[in-house]
Amino acid sequence: MTHIDIPTDSEFGIDNLPYGIFSTRGTDARVGVRYGDNVIDLYAALDDAEFASASLNAFMARGRSRWVEVRTAVTDMLTGGQTPAEAIAPVSDVTMHLPFEVADYVDFYASEHHASNLGRLFRPDAEPLLPNWKHLPVAYHGRAGTVVVSGTDITRPRGQRKAPDEPSPTFGPSRRLDIEAEMGFVVGVPADGPISPDQFSEHVFGAVIVNDWSARDIQAWEYVPLGPNLGKSFATSISPWVVPLLALEQARVSTPVQDPEPLKYLRETRSWALDIDLTVAWNGHIVSNPPYSAMYWSPAQMLAHETVNGASSRTGDLFASGTISGPEKNQRGAFIELTWGGSEPVTLGSETRTFLEDGDDVVIAASAPGPNGSRIGFGDVRGRIQPA
Amino acid sequence: MTHIDIPTDSEFGIDNLPYGIFSTRGTDARVGVRYGDNVIDLYAALDDAEFASASLNAFMARGRSRWVEVRTAVTDMLTGGQTPAEAIAPVSDVTMHLPFEVADYVDFYASEHHASNLGRLFRPDAEPLLPNWKHLPVAYHGRAGTVVVSGTDITRPRGQRKAPDEPSPTFGPSRRLDIEAEMGFVVGVPADGPISPDQFSEHVFGAVIVNDWSARDIQAWEYVPLGPNLGKSFATSISPWVVPLLALEQARVSTPVQDPEPLKYLRETRSWALDIDLTVAWNGHIVSNPPYSAMYWSPAQMLAHETVNGASSRTGDLFASGTISGPEKNQRGAFIELTWGGSEPVTLGSETRTFLEDGDDVVIAASAPGPNGSRIGFGDVRGRIQPA
Repeated sequence: MTHIDIPTDSEFGIDNLPYGIFSTRGTDARVGVRYGDNVIDLYAALDDAEFASASLNAFMARGRSRWVEVRTAVTDMLTGGQTPAEAIAPVSDVTMHLPFEVADYVDFYASEHHASNLGRLFRPDAEPLLPNWKHLPVAYHGRAGTVVVSGTDITRPRGQRKAPDEPSPTFGPSRRLDIEAEMGFVVGVPADGPISPDQFSEHVFGAVIVNDWSARDIQAWEYVPLGPNLGKSFATSISPWVVPLLALEQARVSTPVQDPEPLKYLRETRSWALDIDLTVAWNGHIVSNPPYSAMYWSPAQMLAHETVNGASSRTGDLFASGTISGPEKNQRGAFIELTWGGSEPVTLGSETRTFLEDGDDVVIAASAPGPNGSRIGFGDVRGRIQPA
Repeated sequence: MTHIDIPTDSEFGIDNLPYGIFSTRGTDARVGVRYGDNVIDLYAALDDAEFASASLNAFMARGRSRWVEVRTAVTDMLTGGQTPAEAIAPVSDVTMHLPFEVADYVDFYASEHHASNLGRLFRPDAEPLLPNWKHLPVAYHGRAGTVVVSGTDITRPRGQRKAPDEPSPTFGPSRRLDIEAEMGFVVGVPADGPISPDQFSEHVFGAVIVNDWSARDIQAWEYVPLGPNLGKSFATSISPWVVPLLALEQARVSTPVQDPEPLKYLRETRSWALDIDLTVAWNGHIVSNPPYSAMYWSPAQMLAHETVNGASSRTGDLFASGTISGPEKNQRGAFIELTWGGSEPVTLGSETRTFLEDGDDVVIAASAPGPNGSRIGFGDVRGRIQPA
């Protein structure tokens, strides 16, 4: 049995303990917990076949009492110096996999700053915020089958593009390939119908960082009247470590004032708005610091809205916040906003950029406050652009 | 061994042979083929464990040569009078289940008449057909987790509704609950990227009838700018029998003239437009006869578009055509069109209707031409409205 020493300022300390799916050379993918820069093999450490699985779905479906039970067992093991040596691997030696099988994927649009900016860019002749926006968390279903784990290369999509001044569309690689920095939440316990905001933590297991890659030229031409499709459906990247809601109690804050008051089904007794700080690095240069705390709608409100019509939820349902943009220019979570539609390039060292070029990489990282001044790290989600 | 006699005019004759998942009292769900009013238990008949499955996914993933092989074996068995008696059950004695696990669900908008009618109703001050419509098959992703098999009761959804003359939204049961009569197509063989129109029959296994239940008041308020969500996500019904593409060769026709000519990636050597006749019965009264042959885009063009950006496809991906409406009023596949937004009620015997009332039922049936004057039946998709 081994006591694992980690730096006191690690974002993967004893108060975090996120779950992921990892493999080492020649072994099958299985469940791990991150502690410092180590991965704890839960099957080896706890001798429970539930963790010999290549996805978190079965564990997530067990529900909150099981989540608490395992978290307590792992905490006791780590603090008691009782970790079997053979259950410890350096994070640099493992390969991370998609942490769960995605059932349905829903993407919201919950930042007032982002929705206003995109309204100005996509519909310059109209009010930027549409009449429904402050009454309900607007969302659409995305493509679950193209959600990939951080580190997966992103091939530039091809498609139809038509600028307003062109007579007809042309076909070819997207010229306006973009990111969207978001947070995503995964359902563990299924439901046959509505999940009220106050039931959020009984159903939702945890959170990941999401990069919802977006081809703005394809999107702008296709999106009326049924919403985004091919401009988004080629790939969505998520971070490999699922931070349990149980680690996010200290990060809970209130949403901004919601005016008009939301309808009753959207009201929370205590909000699940979260104080998560993100950074967006483009080819190694930090270009933005989106604050999740600025989001208008909380994730509990999102899930309550998504299910209020009676729609069932499944283990593995992933819903993401939509682009996180704060009020300041350096808080915008998409390049179309940062560069104002490509008209204001950003400087990356000796280069400038408007949209993504082949070979570019983007790393989005996030962390939240934990107990006693600690930080709860989400790690990062990264991807590099390959040519079409 | 038994020879099964069926009526010569059966829509489930030797040229059809659709697949479904059935169970009998006290048995597990497994793969069956419909022949006349009988279900042939393929596991019992062919002694192949592949058919002891509660979904068609594994069989569909095997690919076209396997689909041909099994179809030939079943045909030989039936025509040779070689069906084991214990493998035959009357269709009236079986329970039908969802025929496949739905991976992603995409809904198109491929009827020019439907898109024009809805444009006039939803956006009365603008051109009914948007500029992109004749250049690409418009579509959005729906909720895969709420696709249900025919016969499942449909609970009236609740949600936010706001009429244009109301100052703010209210919450409650939908007052404008509607249907959409569609055809759906299911992917058998996955792909990592584009599936050209001419590769359609290598990847797509077969077709079902779809009823995409729609709450028009919820939809009208929520759908800008990201498309339909809660107005659709509560339920989508599909028929239980998957008619293989192999049974639809005689139904192939050309699309209407497509002008402007579609971009190259959407062109078919021989079209997969299909001559399928639908009927819509509302409380037993036939109110519409939508002609699938009037659809502007073929299903092969739909799949080619959906994958041209590089998006991968999975076994069980379901894509539906969107509402099938012909040019005549009695060919409209949604009640919002039939009643022109509720302003022109339809007569059902001694009653009238605009939208669905609690207790109403809807049955959508379909059939297509087969060889030698036969008809290929899809059976029907049915559902009854339960109160909110």
